[in-house]
Amino acid sequence: MANVTVLGAGSWGTALAMVLCDNHHRVRLWTHNERHKIEMERTKQNKKYLPDVTLPDELEFEHDLSEALHSVDVIILVVPTKAIRETCKKIIPFINSNTIIVHGSKGIEPQTHMRISEMIAQELTEAKYHSIVALSGPSHAEEVSLRHPTTVTAASSNLNSARYTQDLFMTDYFRVYTSKDIVGVELGGALKNIIALGAGISDGLGYGDNAKAALITRGLAEITRLATVKGANPLTFIGLSGVGDLIVTCTSVHSRNWRAGNMLGKGHRLETVLEEMGMTVEGVRTTEAVHQLAQKLNVKMPITNGIYDVIFNKKSAKKVVDDLMSRDRTTEIEDIAAILTNRYSD
Amino acid sequence: MANVTVLGAGSWGTALAMVLCDNHHRVRLWTHNERHKIEMERTKQNKKYLPDVTLPDELEFEHDLSEALHSVDVIILVVPTKAIRETCKKIIPFINSNTIIVHGSKGIEPQTHMRISEMIAQELTEAKYHSIVALSGPSHAEEVSLRHPTTVTAASSNLNSARYTQDLFMTDYFRVYTSKDIVGVELGGALKNIIALGAGISDGLGYGDNAKAALITRGLAEITRLATVKGANPLTFIGLSGVGDLIVTCTSVHSRNWRAGNMLGKGHRLETVLEEMGMTVEGVRTTEAVHQLAQKLNVKMPITNGIYDVIFNKKSAKKVVDDLMSRDRTTEIEDIAAILTNRYSD
Repeated sequence: MANVTVLGAGSWGTALAMVLCDNHHRVRLWTHNERHKIEMERTKQNKKYLPDVTLPDELEFEHDLSEALHSVDVIILVVPTKAIRETCKKIIPFINSNTIIVHGSKGIEPQTHMRISEMIAQELTEAKYHSIVALSGPSHAEEVSLRHPTTVTAASSNLNSARYTQDLFMTDYFRVYTSKDIVGVELGGALKNIIALGAGISDGLGYGDNAKAALITRGLAEITRLATVKGANPLTFIGLSGVGDLIVTCTSVHSRNWRAGNMLGKGHRLETVLEEMGMTVEGVRTTEAVHQLAQKLNVKMPITNGIYDVIFNKKSAKKVVDDLMSRDRTTEIEDIAAILTNRYSD
Repeated sequence: MANVTVLGAGSWGTALAMVLCDNHHRVRLWTHNERHKIEMERTKQNKKYLPDVTLPDELEFEHDLSEALHSVDVIILVVPTKAIRETCKKIIPFINSNTIIVHGSKGIEPQTHMRISEMIAQELTEAKYHSIVALSGPSHAEEVSLRHPTTVTAASSNLNSARYTQDLFMTDYFRVYTSKDIVGVELGGALKNIIALGAGISDGLGYGDNAKAALITRGLAEITRLATVKGANPLTFIGLSGVGDLIVTCTSVHSRNWRAGNMLGKGHRLETVLEEMGMTVEGVRTTEAVHQLAQKLNVKMPITNGIYDVIFNKKSAKKVVDDLMSRDRTTEIEDIAAILTNRYSD
């Protein structure tokens, strides 16, 4: 039994807290919002983020960070991407060289192009902690809270910490695989949102399953290409945090990124889309960051660039798709083959 | 301009004939059913297989095989899998060492475990022909006939023939990639139907997107494993005829295999399902063939075996999924990594 504290009481944090309770850990769920804490405590529900689900009796609710992190073994960090740095600063007084930090966020920081674990490590440079683990994979929180079968990957450069995280979460409905490739797992989770925008655009244009499957497949190839240049193992993208997460995000109408893309495909302008969504569309920020990064690293990303043109240069979505279809004739696997051959041939 | 004859006037054959007409080839569409030929000629529609689509004026319809194959350069073979051998026998008098045979069928022959191109080659052992090409990828015929963007792969051990096929079909809405890996492309197209049954079973059990994404992802890993043992390039499975076709088949409610799986997941017996479907469910035959093959080749295929147990041993679908979830803890990419390392490390 471990002392685990989940920082962030959104849908994903709450669902993970429930899994941990099923595994009989001591679990505290922290929210920065005192009213939210009191309401969850009183109703045993998280009505705003995970309606109609009854929270376990054993789950403890916290608003005070020092209470939440007293004697903690593992911190599960599931705050929004833009709150990562600020939250890391606040936890420094409560962690030590045994503390494992698991995060469940997906994104890339604009300007710095940093992955989440890089942002965490940078903020904790002066602090002592054990290791950072990324937890990622195809996982709607609602389904996890209903105990529907779900699989995810726990990735860390410290494989022992990935295994520890596997043991921490593994139940008969929540299956955890381990990976050493935290670079690939984090980039897979972040970059899939670009392709989800593309899938939405294609659907918005009235195109069908063939076009969407092509976008997903060729999109997977180009995010693999970029990630490999950044040091990821290309095989990670055949896995849960690659193709698995991509499928869920691109084929679910619940995906925020797909919905934003769908509106763009129907001809709405970015300002209108963002206004109507009323919340962050992570894929839009990620498209901007990755478009910059691909130029800097000289990586060919035709789909990302096309989506960038639709969003930021007001280029017609139909024109972008037509251009993608009329590119040079090519063999399909030569670029991925080149990546893998380079990697495995010596 | 080439003389192209499409053998088989189902939905896929008809859609391919339309693409070829758009490319200004001389195109003849052959059906074994004389009434069907006359009706198509009269109505300029293929009402049974591709309703509401007007066929091009230039398209010629044939019922007599010698008329259909007179002076033919390329034969597009799109008859049902079980009619492949019989049709090959009949075309022998009309082909010569310049004839290219392109097929668009997906399946594995029970007992012999042969791929389609192997069956064709075996039947044509005594005949002269140029080469065999497989055309495969995520492609609902209806969408192709509406000229919605679609991408496929043309695969042949003779890369020049694959390129010739690419030129033959390529239009601004129908994009063709080439591949030398006909083994991988054919196995990808056939084996995906097993996973589609599994996706249907999972949905039939009431499980969600997380479970389905896990099935697709882990299913992709095991079909890659088997195919690689049979000599395929594992990278093919990251492409259109692998993950692309898999996504379309597993996430479309129009897929026959998904629908059959869905009924099995809801507790119906195989006999009822097959009766209700009223037509061949290719995935059922493929599951049987691949289950045998995996045992023979000693390849680990837990998902295929589980689906086999549901279909043929009346094992409870829920029990099978629960068993799949409780397998040993493992790292995610070690098996695929082993395949690729073996392939690329020397």
